[in-house]
Amino acid sequence: MTLGFEILGTDGAARRGRVTLAHGTVETPAFMPVGTAATVKAMRPESVAETGAEILLGNTYHLMLRPTAERIAELGGLHTFMNWPKPILTDSGGFQVMSLAGRRKIDADGVTFRSHIDGSEHRLTPARSIEIQDLLDADITMAFDECTPHPAEHGTAAESMRLSMRWAKLSRSAFRDRPGYGLFGIVQGSVYDDLRRESVTALTDIGFDGYAIGGLAVGEGQAEMFRVLDVTAPLLPDDRPRYLMGVGKPGDLVGAVQRGVDMFDCVLPSRSGRTGQALTRRGAVNIRNARHMADPRPLDPDCACPACTGYSRAYLHHLSKADEILGPMLLTWHNLHYYQELMAGLRAAIAGQTLDDFAASFAEQQAAGDMPPL
Amino acid sequence: MTLGFEILGTDGAARRGRVTLAHGTVETPAFMPVGTAATVKAMRPESVAETGAEILLGNTYHLMLRPTAERIAELGGLHTFMNWPKPILTDSGGFQVMSLAGRRKIDADGVTFRSHIDGSEHRLTPARSIEIQDLLDADITMAFDECTPHPAEHGTAAESMRLSMRWAKLSRSAFRDRPGYGLFGIVQGSVYDDLRRESVTALTDIGFDGYAIGGLAVGEGQAEMFRVLDVTAPLLPDDRPRYLMGVGKPGDLVGAVQRGVDMFDCVLPSRSGRTGQALTRRGAVNIRNARHMADPRPLDPDCACPACTGYSRAYLHHLSKADEILGPMLLTWHNLHYYQELMAGLRAAIAGQTLDDFAASFAEQQAAGDMPPL
Repeated sequence: MTLGFEILGTDGAARRGRVTLAHGTVETPAFMPVGTAATVKAMRPESVAETGAEILLGNTYHLMLRPTAERIAELGGLHTFMNWPKPILTDSGGFQVMSLAGRRKIDADGVTFRSHIDGSEHRLTPARSIEIQDLLDADITMAFDECTPHPAEHGTAAESMRLSMRWAKLSRSAFRDRPGYGLFGIVQGSVYDDLRRESVTALTDIGFDGYAIGGLAVGEGQAEMFRVLDVTAPLLPDDRPRYLMGVGKPGDLVGAVQRGVDMFDCVLPSRSGRTGQALTRRGAVNIRNARHMADPRPLDPDCACPACTGYSRAYLHHLSKADEILGPMLLTWHNLHYYQELMAGLRAAIAGQTLDDFAASFAEQQAAGDMPPL
Repeated sequence: MTLGFEILGTDGAARRGRVTLAHGTVETPAFMPVGTAATVKAMRPESVAETGAEILLGNTYHLMLRPTAERIAELGGLHTFMNWPKPILTDSGGFQVMSLAGRRKIDADGVTFRSHIDGSEHRLTPARSIEIQDLLDADITMAFDECTPHPAEHGTAAESMRLSMRWAKLSRSAFRDRPGYGLFGIVQGSVYDDLRRESVTALTDIGFDGYAIGGLAVGEGQAEMFRVLDVTAPLLPDDRPRYLMGVGKPGDLVGAVQRGVDMFDCVLPSRSGRTGQALTRRGAVNIRNARHMADPRPLDPDCACPACTGYSRAYLHHLSKADEILGPMLLTWHNLHYYQELMAGLRAAIAGQTLDDFAASFAEQQAAGDMPPL
C-alpha cells in the first residue's frame, strides 16, 4: 500500500476520510474537477484551488496526443506543466478511446485508435497506459479498462468485464510502487449484480490501493446507479478509498456518498459553466433565459463565489448573450465552488453524524427550485 | 472645470500628472484597457486592477445596443454592472458607427445606423451620445465626432473636421457638469497641420475638461503620427489632460509620451492576447510558433505577471494549439501587465527626468528581439 487512507468518521455507510498522496492530502468525500488537456477549462489553477479543490483529474487520452506524455515528463511532469502543485489523478485513457466510435479497434492486448486531432494512429495497452500516467507523474493512476457500453446483454457485459480484469492484472504488474503514489482498480459488470461481485473479487485478489466503480452514469439513470452502488460498495475493502467515475449531478453525489463513495469526478460543473448553465443549491439555472435580463439579484444570494458576490444575473445574462469569455470564467467558477461547498457540507455532516438531515435538506432546496422572477 | 488635473513633473514635453475623477485618481501617463461590452475580454476586473490599470474604456456603440444604456442605468451604472469601481472613460460611439460601412448614413445632425447584432435601426446625435454616456455614469465623456477616414483629401478632411467641431459644441451643451466628471473634446484634421490648428482653436474656444487627439493610428504610420503630434500637442492647453485615441503599440506609447500625451487606449494588448500574440519588453512573441513547443522558459523571465511566473512557453503554446480558454486569459493578462509596467516606467522616468534614457533603453530591448531558441 503506497498511498495513505484514514477514515476519520462514519455515518451509516458514508465515510469521512483523508487520502495522503505525494503532492498533498485530500479530504474525502472529495470532488475532482476535470482538467482534460492540462487545464480546467476557463479557470486559472489558483482559482480552482480557491474553490476548495484538492485534487484534479487529468486525461491520458488527450495528453498522450497533445502535447504527449514524454513532452510533459521532459517539462517536469503534469503538476509543473499546468502549475497545479496539488494531487492529480489520471484516467487510463480507456473510457475516451472506447468512445471513439469507428476510429478504434479492440483486441485482447489493448486498443488501436486514430487521433481526433490529426488522424494519426496510436495504441494503448495496460502497460502503455500505466507508463503514460507515470510520465505524467499522476499521484493516482487508474488501471486500463474497457468501459462496457450501456445497455449491454449479460454475456457481453461479462466478456467485457473479464477483459478489464485481465488488463487490471497487467496494469498492476506495470505499475511502479512508490510512496505517495497509488493504483486504483476499476469494478465493471454493467448492471448485473453477479458480474459486479465477480469483478470486485478479481480486483481484490490482485490488490489495489483504491477501487473505482466504472461503467455507471452512462444512461442507466440515478435509481439504477444507486442500486448498483448498494450492491457493489459494501463488497469493497473498507480500508481503501472508493471512487465513482464520471459522476455526477449534485443529487448523485449526495446519494453516492450516503452509499459509501469517497471520490468523484465529472465534467458537468465545468462544461455547464461554458453553456450558461449554473448549478446552485436551488437547482439548475439557465442564465441565457430572458427572465434574467434585468434581474439585479445574484445567481445565488447565499453563495460566496466571485460570480455571486460581484455580479447581477443581468450582467451574467449579458455576458452569455454577448459570448464574452468572462461568462464561462464566472459560471465555471461558480459551479466548481458550489460542488466543493456541497462536498464540504457532506464531510461536515458525516463528521457530525447528521448526513440524513443534510441529504433531506439538500433535496428540499433542490426541489423548491430557483427564486421566482422579481 | 469639473475634473481635477495636476501636473506633478515634466521632462521635455512629457508630463507626469494625476487626474482626479468621481471614482478615483489616475496617474498619468496612463494606459486604459478596453472593456468594449462591459468586460475586458478574458479578464476578471480584479485581475485588470492587479495589472495596475486605474481606468478603463467602455464603448457607447456596443453598450447602447446590448444591454442598452437604460438597462445599465437601472442596474446602477456601468461601474456596478461590470464590477469595476474605478474610473471609466466612454467613447462617443462615433468611431465605431463610422466604421459600419454600408450600414450607416451621416447627416448634419448625427448618424443613423443598423445594429451589427440584429439589424435594428438606431440613431446617434451629439445630444444622444452624451445622454448615453451619462446613463453609463462615465467619469470621462467623449464629445461625439466623425472620425475622418484615412487617407482623406484636404477638402474632405476639412469638411469632416468642421462637422466634428459643430458636434463638439452640441456635445458641450448637452453635457451635465458635475464634480469628478469631465467632457473631452476631440481634435480632428487628418494629417493637415492647418486643419489640426483650426480644430484645436475651435475646441479651446468651446472649452473642455480635456483634449483628445483623434483620427490617428488609422494607417498613416508611426512617423506621420508623431509628426502630427509634434504639431498638435504643443497647441493644447498645458493644464488639461491630453488623450491619444486608439494608440497603440508599445513604441507608439513611448514616442507619444515624449511628445506630451497623458492618456491612451488600445485593443492591441487584449486582442493580441486572444490570438496567441504576446507583447514583451523584447518585442512581440507569437506563442503559436513551433519553436516554443518544448521551451521550458517563461515568456519573459523579467516579467512578474501570472503567465510568466507560473508557466513555460511550452505550456502557453500547448494552450494556444488546443484552443483552451486559459490561453487568452493568461496572454491577455501578460499583455495588459506589460502595458501597465511600461506606463509605470514612463511615469518614473519623467519624475526622475530620465525619459530620454528610458526611451533609448526601451528601443534597444525591442530591437534586440526575443530570446534565441534554446
